[in-house]
Amino acid sequence: MFAPEDLTLDRFLDGRLTIAQPRAGYRAAMDPVLLAAACPAKAGQGVLELGCGAGVASLCLGWRVAGARLVGLELQPAYAQLARENAARNGVGFDVFEGDLARMPAALRAQSFDHVIANPPYFAPASGTAARNAGRERAQREETPLADWVRQGLKRLHPGGTITLIQNADRLADLLAALGAGAGSVTVLPIAPRVGRPAGRVIVQARKGGRGPLRLLAPLVLHEAAHHAADAEDLTSIARSVLRRGEELRITP
Amino acid sequence: MFAPEDLTLDRFLDGRLTIAQPRAGYRAAMDPVLLAAACPAKAGQGVLELGCGAGVASLCLGWRVAGARLVGLELQPAYAQLARENAARNGVGFDVFEGDLARMPAALRAQSFDHVIANPPYFAPASGTAARNAGRERAQREETPLADWVRQGLKRLHPGGTITLIQNADRLADLLAALGAGAGSVTVLPIAPRVGRPAGRVIVQARKGGRGPLRLLAPLVLHEAAHHAADAEDLTSIARSVLRRGEELRITP
Repeated sequence: MFAPEDLTLDRFLDGRLTIAQPRAGYRAAMDPVLLAAACPAKAGQGVLELGCGAGVASLCLGWRVAGARLVGLELQPAYAQLARENAARNGVGFDVFEGDLARMPAALRAQSFDHVIANPPYFAPASGTAARNAGRERAQREETPLADWVRQGLKRLHPGGTITLIQNADRLADLLAALGAGAGSVTVLPIAPRVGRPAGRVIVQARKGGRGPLRLLAPLVLHEAAHHAADAEDLTSIARSVLRRGEELRITP
Repeated sequence: MFAPEDLTLDRFLDGRLTIAQPRAGYRAAMDPVLLAAACPAKAGQGVLELGCGAGVASLCLGWRVAGARLVGLELQPAYAQLARENAARNGVGFDVFEGDLARMPAALRAQSFDHVIANPPYFAPASGTAARNAGRERAQREETPLADWVRQGLKRLHPGGTITLIQNADRLADLLAALGAGAGSVTVLPIAPRVGRPAGRVIVQARKGGRGPLRLLAPLVLHEAAHHAADAEDLTSIARSVLRRGEELRITP
């Protein structure tokens, strides 16, 4: 487990949430907040987050959608415990299971959900340089193939339920291929740092058993200025609505 | 063959090219012009267009890149003949073969190219309503699977050569899957009618044997106004540079 001195308390959604994260481990920034914003959950629906880490995405979703039933799965026990503490800290109900998504706990396999969300590791095995921190390493590096995240997520969905993932844009082909087996009605939302720039991330959403056409949306642009202005708050209005006010990104057809 | 009264003479690239097209058949508009703009051919290089129709894409490319060796393959003899006539009309060298891309003429199979371009039919078999015109039907409807266009195109490329396709955006997953076998360094350029709107088309380019990451570029937006203004010329400056002046769209890494 993390010692208190190894944690920082970070503000999300303009301080609406306070979330403890390991000082030296994997630290969430915008991605889980964007992921939560893109999930079309409604009150009374169940949402499973695969690889929930410290819980940022699910807690953002819980803040927006009162009455959603939130469940998480996390491989690393210290992060699972942290997610539980963060849920309690923010008064959000969040049922966190420990385990590997390829060998899900039986109590989780017995459940199915209206929505699945995931922010899988961004770096393929044996690419790049290893993170010096083992926890960050596991959170960032792809030990479980991306296709397994999608397959296991689809298994836990009701027919017609949505799966929403955020990933590095260079994994778009892999994500679409994985979703091709069992899902359809795919929506791709590019996330670009600035207007005119290539996407850095993509949010990809699909419906289990969906048969609608793929839609490639206009990018969500995060920053207004053409170049980085160190101290200026230059988020676009859509980025502010999502990252500061926790509003929904309506991308579901 | 088409009778003269069945043809119209249409201006492309602001009148730099005059191209005969069947009055009632498949009529090219922006797509082949955009396709040509995205092909990074240089003088002295060979370019094969699969399914060249009346020749718009290759002739636009020939206008921009003097000294490129242009070769086309077209299934329908009347269109192949029209492409030859259009090439002569515009003083562009264009060697057009008749045949099915799945059973390419031996003289074409003996060649390889630096670049392949294609604007494959947009409608999957048995989807939508059939075009009333048989020629348009064949040009628009997918009798040869999209994956075969890609596979046959890759076969005709030198190692390291590029393949560039333009398609309806809803076929993005199919295109990426087809390119996954044998190509890499994929670039996706969404083409959107107006800012903030989903992509209508995508240009997808890949390199034979490429190993670079997929890049999802900012969309090319065609029109300035938020809504259609019937008589106004509202092309964006990038669209004007490509569609009016025949300039290159530099998307190759």
